[in-house]
Amino acid sequence: MMDIEALRATLRTLVGEAHVLTDGDLTAYEQDWRKRERGRALAVVRPGTTEEVAAVVKACGAAGVSLVPQGGNTGMVVGSIPDASGTQVLLSLQRLNRIRAIDAANLTVTVEAGCVLQTLQEACEKDGFLFPLSLAAEGSCTIGGNLATNAGGTQVVRYGNTRELCLGLEVVTAQGEVWSGLTGLRKDNTGYDLRHLFIGSEGTLGVITAATLRMYPLPAAQLTAFAAVPSLDAAVQLLGLAHQHLNAGLTGFEVMGDFALGLVRKHFPQQNVPFGGMSPYCVVLENSDHESESHAREQFERLLEAALEQGCVLDAVVAENIAQARALWHIRESIPLAQAQEGLNIKHDISIAVSRIPAFVTEVDALLEQHFPGVRLVNYGHLGDGNLHYNVQAPDGADAEAFLRDQEGPINTLVYEVVDRFNGSISAEHGIGSLKREKLAHHKSPVALNAMRAIKGALDPKNLMNPGRVLSIE
Amino acid sequence: MMDIEALRATLRTLVGEAHVLTDGDLTAYEQDWRKRERGRALAVVRPGTTEEVAAVVKACGAAGVSLVPQGGNTGMVVGSIPDASGTQVLLSLQRLNRIRAIDAANLTVTVEAGCVLQTLQEACEKDGFLFPLSLAAEGSCTIGGNLATNAGGTQVVRYGNTRELCLGLEVVTAQGEVWSGLTGLRKDNTGYDLRHLFIGSEGTLGVITAATLRMYPLPAAQLTAFAAVPSLDAAVQLLGLAHQHLNAGLTGFEVMGDFALGLVRKHFPQQNVPFGGMSPYCVVLENSDHESESHAREQFERLLEAALEQGCVLDAVVAENIAQARALWHIRESIPLAQAQEGLNIKHDISIAVSRIPAFVTEVDALLEQHFPGVRLVNYGHLGDGNLHYNVQAPDGADAEAFLRDQEGPINTLVYEVVDRFNGSISAEHGIGSLKREKLAHHKSPVALNAMRAIKGALDPKNLMNPGRVLSIE
Repeated sequence: MMDIEALRATLRTLVGEAHVLTDGDLTAYEQDWRKRERGRALAVVRPGTTEEVAAVVKACGAAGVSLVPQGGNTGMVVGSIPDASGTQVLLSLQRLNRIRAIDAANLTVTVEAGCVLQTLQEACEKDGFLFPLSLAAEGSCTIGGNLATNAGGTQVVRYGNTRELCLGLEVVTAQGEVWSGLTGLRKDNTGYDLRHLFIGSEGTLGVITAATLRMYPLPAAQLTAFAAVPSLDAAVQLLGLAHQHLNAGLTGFEVMGDFALGLVRKHFPQQNVPFGGMSPYCVVLENSDHESESHAREQFERLLEAALEQGCVLDAVVAENIAQARALWHIRESIPLAQAQEGLNIKHDISIAVSRIPAFVTEVDALLEQHFPGVRLVNYGHLGDGNLHYNVQAPDGADAEAFLRDQEGPINTLVYEVVDRFNGSISAEHGIGSLKREKLAHHKSPVALNAMRAIKGALDPKNLMNPGRVLSIE
Repeated sequence: MMDIEALRATLRTLVGEAHVLTDGDLTAYEQDWRKRERGRALAVVRPGTTEEVAAVVKACGAAGVSLVPQGGNTGMVVGSIPDASGTQVLLSLQRLNRIRAIDAANLTVTVEAGCVLQTLQEACEKDGFLFPLSLAAEGSCTIGGNLATNAGGTQVVRYGNTRELCLGLEVVTAQGEVWSGLTGLRKDNTGYDLRHLFIGSEGTLGVITAATLRMYPLPAAQLTAFAAVPSLDAAVQLLGLAHQHLNAGLTGFEVMGDFALGLVRKHFPQQNVPFGGMSPYCVVLENSDHESESHAREQFERLLEAALEQGCVLDAVVAENIAQARALWHIRESIPLAQAQEGLNIKHDISIAVSRIPAFVTEVDALLEQHFPGVRLVNYGHLGDGNLHYNVQAPDGADAEAFLRDQEGPINTLVYEVVDRFNGSISAEHGIGSLKREKLAHHKSPVALNAMRAIKGALDPKNLMNPGRVLSIE
């Protein structure tokens, strides 16, 4: 039996009395973002340096105690809170939050894991650079959590996921050793790419403590358009035209179903949502231009002309100024809030090859209507990346709580079965955590799962790093 | 003792008599590209399908025989030929060369490992798309080899290495199982990224049999400029301006030292190399434009004006047409041939953070001149990626063969020691193979090497996949 008090005392010695929390309200650390689960930590430990993280990992390893790393605790899949046993140490990276260096000529920024994403964006912008990762939780999520979960967001169509923005990592391994991989190199073919292995591993292989990330020149202008499209097929056609006309200028391409937009109209009537009821889908596009606003506008106009001619756009507005652009994006960003106002719902974060999205939606829409008559589909997402948040709301007037309790399982099964047939992913950008772990075991290829288990066993043989997340180890 | 003849017979059954080569001239399979080493294969096996590859891996595994996967055999680091023992099976992927599908709306192409890179480029172009990987060996290297070694080339500044172009893999594992990861998804956060683990692992973890890769719209125009710059510092400054002015239009940024250009002038006098002796370095830049040639030219002119004003460019020419553009690129591409004409030389393929390249070169230039007086530095490479081919030629009139024999070791040691101090890489784009394996053991962090060994042991416990490459396993 481990001696809990002895370990707590050791941890206090390592990081200081004030940074080992065991009493008081620990809700912020112990409850997940979506309030689906509440755990209990042996202690919340808040190291302030990489060396302290390494010492904590070593101490926990010696005591046989498992660790749950946590950044801003904004994850969607219950991946960064302790379980209910009271035997896990919650390792908060929030104090490890410095921006270590901005290297303008190398177009890189080196930052510690606990830095809040928005703080990082602002620091880069102050120096004249863009750090392009952008997502709803950016005001509280941390870059370490973004890396551990390979966060996506709204700029992936141009800049990729967090993974694609990372040139190097500093990691504390499960053995409590520090791997210093913060080289800032754009090319390095010296063996296996450990960086990409740790990115997206959700803290199950080690603790990311810092990263060197790509920056880009700030665009001279950003323009936003909002377009009504006659179908999802048309939206995909418009995406192709946008790639052709805007090329790397295309930095955002979001789709929104009419019911999703209707919820915004209903719950946020002060928002002016264009094209009400005109079309089954609307699209938000963003064009980032390195020349000028007039050049951006000219490019956008050519694109929309071609799209109107080809019939893949019914009508469109281009924001005249930044306030209008923000308002158009705000419509898209309000969908999750509007659906929450409407009531509990069943969330999916799926991806399919872009070309197959229309066929997928047609099929799963029909199957759901057949098996769960009256369900309402809040379908929206990052069409440019083939990523839909295909969410399912209870039928009008139904008891949403009962619906969630009784139907979440069967509806997940139905949707994920179609995702499988379309060779898609059941978690495009949110990760697995503990919420989707059992699902993953059914939907991922056994060959891949075996390889993952072998790697986990090789790098964390005692299964102390965020155990029970992503994989179950028997 | 294994029964060689029995295994050969099994292999003949699996892939057909004609595709198991044991006699005749096998030089093309057994000798490395740079003619540094010659091995001897138990058999050269040429499977025609993924299932045949899997069957061959299983048969070799059952016999305890190791496998060396090979694509076009154009690697630079002796990574894809059998050793001299005559006990390894050479697995040629060349017959597995189909382009399986081009998905225009998803901007992806799915292709088998043995497809020659140029064939792939041409197939995409025929459908109106760009597959941007481009390197000297493109007429004979294969995409499987490009993936296994994470090849770089001349377009990395915009499109990344082969790694960044890959959305999914099909792999035969060391156990002879097929992992089908050809999803074509841009977002997929369902566990560890096996794709990136196999990419760059040089066949030591499994055999890549197919891949789904990104395509881009073809640019409307490509313009090339050749500029004389007063220093490497100025070249880095010009690079920053080019990022600002051209943004994603900047698809190539190569630097060439004056001595390297002098070798082209000397050995290929028919080539018209601009700015002879005017400056210590010249730069080739490429601007790919999705609008028009006139727009590309206007962008280029603005950039060069700004650069001339800031003094980071002394003089520049912009190609007037495609023939001139090719001629300018041809100068850059002729450097390796010119240095070969000049005699044997010691090659380095190093990377450093772009911002630190000038300081690195100043330091290592001086150290070499101090310790090896008279050596001639053929310094050129992909400055946009911080990747230099910093090659060392014997002093004028010296015996090049003796120089290579006696000085390669000490010069490598000197150069790599400075690379270490600058936190750089001793292999930016060529990989490790067997040529740099011992070097890697000295220059890579022990924490990273231990993690690599643990992964290798977990995925290939019998050490049968390209053993002795990348890592030595004790």
